[in-house]
Amino acid sequence: MVKTLLEAFNAAEYPVVGHGKRNVQVLKDTFDHLDGEMDSDIYGTGKVIEDFQAKIAAFLGKPSAVFFPSGTMAQQIALRLWCEEKSSRKVAYHPLCHLEIHEQDGLKELHHLEPVLLADKDRLITLDDVKSMDDDIACMLLELPQREIGGQLPAYEELEAIADYCREKGIKLHLDGARLFEILPYYGKTAAEVCSLFDSVYVSFYKGIGGIAGAILSGEEEFTKLSKIWKRRHGGDLISLYPYILSADQAFDERHPKMEQYYLSAIELAGLYNSGIEGIRTRPMVPVSNMFHVYAAMPKETFERILLEICEESGIGLTGNVRDAGEGASYYEVSLGDRYPAIPKERLKQAFELLHEKVKQTAK
Amino acid sequence: MVKTLLEAFNAAEYPVVGHGKRNVQVLKDTFDHLDGEMDSDIYGTGKVIEDFQAKIAAFLGKPSAVFFPSGTMAQQIALRLWCEEKSSRKVAYHPLCHLEIHEQDGLKELHHLEPVLLADKDRLITLDDVKSMDDDIACMLLELPQREIGGQLPAYEELEAIADYCREKGIKLHLDGARLFEILPYYGKTAAEVCSLFDSVYVSFYKGIGGIAGAILSGEEEFTKLSKIWKRRHGGDLISLYPYILSADQAFDERHPKMEQYYLSAIELAGLYNSGIEGIRTRPMVPVSNMFHVYAAMPKETFERILLEICEESGIGLTGNVRDAGEGASYYEVSLGDRYPAIPKERLKQAFELLHEKVKQTAK
Repeated sequence: MVKTLLEAFNAAEYPVVGHGKRNVQVLKDTFDHLDGEMDSDIYGTGKVIEDFQAKIAAFLGKPSAVFFPSGTMAQQIALRLWCEEKSSRKVAYHPLCHLEIHEQDGLKELHHLEPVLLADKDRLITLDDVKSMDDDIACMLLELPQREIGGQLPAYEELEAIADYCREKGIKLHLDGARLFEILPYYGKTAAEVCSLFDSVYVSFYKGIGGIAGAILSGEEEFTKLSKIWKRRHGGDLISLYPYILSADQAFDERHPKMEQYYLSAIELAGLYNSGIEGIRTRPMVPVSNMFHVYAAMPKETFERILLEICEESGIGLTGNVRDAGEGASYYEVSLGDRYPAIPKERLKQAFELLHEKVKQTAK
Repeated sequence: MVKTLLEAFNAAEYPVVGHGKRNVQVLKDTFDHLDGEMDSDIYGTGKVIEDFQAKIAAFLGKPSAVFFPSGTMAQQIALRLWCEEKSSRKVAYHPLCHLEIHEQDGLKELHHLEPVLLADKDRLITLDDVKSMDDDIACMLLELPQREIGGQLPAYEELEAIADYCREKGIKLHLDGARLFEILPYYGKTAAEVCSLFDSVYVSFYKGIGGIAGAILSGEEEFTKLSKIWKRRHGGDLISLYPYILSADQAFDERHPKMEQYYLSAIELAGLYNSGIEGIRTRPMVPVSNMFHVYAAMPKETFERILLEICEESGIGLTGNVRDAGEGASYYEVSLGDRYPAIPKERLKQAFELLHEKVKQTAK
């Protein structure tokens, strides 16, 4: 049977992306060190959840925070709350916002909110886009970095100008901070400084942080209090969330100080991709976080075959998953984490030489 | 500082109810035995989730099953699906249904469904109540046992008649089986036999089963397939649910064969409560599952004081939590599990002698 790219990647001597395997060992490693006598949280109360919420609220510079099983739940609720406050159904976000493309339209089907799409699919939201919004929009969501276009960021000054404008117009600003920790080194700002521009903030604990699952929604006390009512309505107020909370807590301590390392890894690796290989380029060319996308001017199947061969011949797993980019092109997402520094530079160089050769052969 | 009843219960030599402490050790005990190489589920796919879903579907005698983080999420979605199918907004259930009193009206606020309340707060839904329903009701939810009235059950013949009637009228029947496993010994039926009366079934894994959290929604393939779309909309389609799934799986294997033991424990303990102590009685008088409620003709504070004293003097923790029952009365819920058999009968007898004495003294 022919191996798939994903199988080859999972078996690679040096997988390049991510922190490690998503397996049960992640949980075992977390809990081996923990005291079994620690009480479970109970329906959103108890030391284990309250302490973590307070810790992350402080890190984000907000008065309050609530742990959610998922960002999908947290963000729909954030937008619903701002809409309730303004008695408007309108929210604004990017056409490739998570809520628009990955949530089976929960925002519309469950909350009956009406999104207004800003900018277009290929670029960031600008201050001009923001200025084109109607005043009856309750909330604008900004995703930093904008994942679906490779993880791009506006200049910090533009972000400040957007925040000023929204405040002036009475439009709440919500941060989709699924990868907030990952962008702090590029902006050279603390989380609290970035979050001070936003009325509400969501952060995730299983992306750069590498926990098992879970999210935090943060803001003013009154806002998070109301979010707990909606959390119950959504079925997210579980009797015990501690498996996620304790893993998130430990992973946060371990990895948020490593975000600069991951960011520098991304710059280095993107440089290898952008070393003049015909038809291959990264987006953005110079990463602003630990992530970027790799585009190839060839069909998915061709790119998969090349990457599989490289994996088999060099032991370097560049990715496990290529997607169709339309018009005969393909791409994949790269997120750097704990695995990258362990790869011998010579081996990585060799893999890119193979990529160069194989692309050239294919083009013939 | 004066100890609260809950603190005394938690420190009791012999707590009577439950399986054990809800602490991190529960998770550690589960995962110590598991292979760390086992892959995480990923957004509802993968062996760990698919195997467990198939196993529980088979146990319930249904073609398909979906794991959910919570019953709150699973049941709202079940009712929504049946309403979509019939193009009706009406569902029927008991006035003390979980969806009516414990979910911050998620069914109404998120799904805009309109519940019709059957029977009244003090009794079970009967066939006559069911016959009084309008035909435009899409789905009736039956909770077996009816928890908020002490865990009561209709006769099995009445249940069959209700199911026949609903089928004839085109009203879907959904089972709130939060405690389904717990009632099988009383009915003397398999889960599959009981579930064959219902179009859809929810079961819980952290009550009698004693897992960390989580639920299964089961029914026909087409039904569960649609439920996954709504699971994503609700924010319940987590990247990893394995901490709950693997704990549920292990707890299911360990405890579903013990349901008869828990049931017999409940009958025995209820007998001690119903031994002629003035103003004290259980509801139901003879339990039909592992649970019952204890009612006392005295205010919450008085009953709490008595139970705290008994706990301190005898080492027997009868409960940690008394609730106001109105009109100067109070009550608490009892659920029997793994702890009960470990209690020396003599010590338990002594605790009930103390209860007898203290109630008599209080009545003076």
